[in-house]
Amino acid sequence: MSHIHHHRNALLARVRRMAGQVAALESALQSTEADCTNVLMQASAVRGAAHGLLMALLDEHLQEHVVDAEDPAERAAQAQVLVKLLRAYGR
Amino acid sequence: MSHIHHHRNALLARVRRMAGQVAALESALQSTEADCTNVLMQASAVRGAAHGLLMALLDEHLQEHVVDAEDPAERAAQAQVLVKLLRAYGR
Amino acid sequence: MSHIHHHRNALLARVRRMAGQVAALESALQSTEADCTNVLMQASAVRGAAHGLLMALLDEHLQEHVVDAEDPAERAAQAQVLVKLLRAYGR
Amino acid sequence: MSHIHHHRNALLARVRRMAGQVAALESALQSTEADCTNVLMQASAVRGAAHGLLMALLDEHLQEHVVDAEDPAERAAQAQVLVKLLRAYGR
Repeated sequence: MSHIHHHRNALLARVRRMAGQVAALESALQSTEADCTNVLMQASAVRGAAHGLLMALLDEHLQEHVVDAEDPAERAAQAQVLVKLLRAYGR
Repeated sequence: MSHIHHHRNALLARVRRMAGQVAALESALQSTEADCTNVLMQASAVRGAAHGLLMALLDEHLQEHVVDAEDPAERAAQAQVLVKLLRAYGR
Repeated sequence: MSHIHHHRNALLARVRRMAGQVAALESALQSTEADCTNVLMQASAVRGAAHGLLMALLDEHLQEHVVDAEDPAERAAQAQVLVKLLRAYGR
Repeated sequence: MSHIHHHRNALLARVRRMAGQVAALESALQSTEADCTNVLMQASAVRGAAHGLLMALLDEHLQEHVVDAEDPAERAAQAQVLVKLLRAYGR
């Protein structure tokens, strides 16, 4: 059992909200009088939502797969997953 | 006429690809044996896609609404839109 | 005359404050009972200061070398400097 | 004994290199013919160095104070330090 199962409903709600934001961005781009500033703001909101979701997942992963793991080797392996992700971006 | 119209097809293709990634993330979360590392990787890919899209939009906005604008007041106003967005995140 | 000259004193004060933060971080690391959480907080403060300084420089560069430039080719060239910098990080 | 002590020399070398970069940035700003693009590049290098140092410290903190801690309460407390730092930036 993992954090994804514990928090599944909250995570799903979050992902669906983000899907709605992406769909709104698609509509805005298709509109014949798409307003650039508005499109930028929507794209920024999607990025913010994606970042927030990733941070929430990292936080839960750290808690359930590292903090709560009894086996030190398992903790080390799961911590490496997080370290790799963090190094991949945010430069 | 704005950069959104010039690049509409490329931008729409990008947004639709991102919508597909968000849908895949939703499926992964719903699976009864959702793998946490896999979900993290997918969420990270969505964030990367959202960031890349925002950077592309910023780049085009800068080019078409600031660089190509003949009116200095218009350039100043449009540059402020970009500055505000950049300040909003990436701390 | 460039933005660096207009804002030189404010920028220098900012860089010197950052130099002080880096020196404090060096001292903290040298202390025999260096506290890890404290060192992390100091390193985070340095990163925040460096990010804020870079954003201020980007902002001024955009204003003075793009918005205020009368030559469109010069605006385009200077905008490219900013785009390259933004693409280099913040993924 | 903490990660700061294990890696003290490498961390100190890194902080001193960063202090040198900050000093070079200060000189560049003071020069009467400071080149804006060059100053931007130097400020970007300082930001990159500060970010890399923070990531290295986060990584070591995770390893030594969370992964290697035998007490679950200690792991939870130290993980919270990291979560707070990560939430503070990178939006």
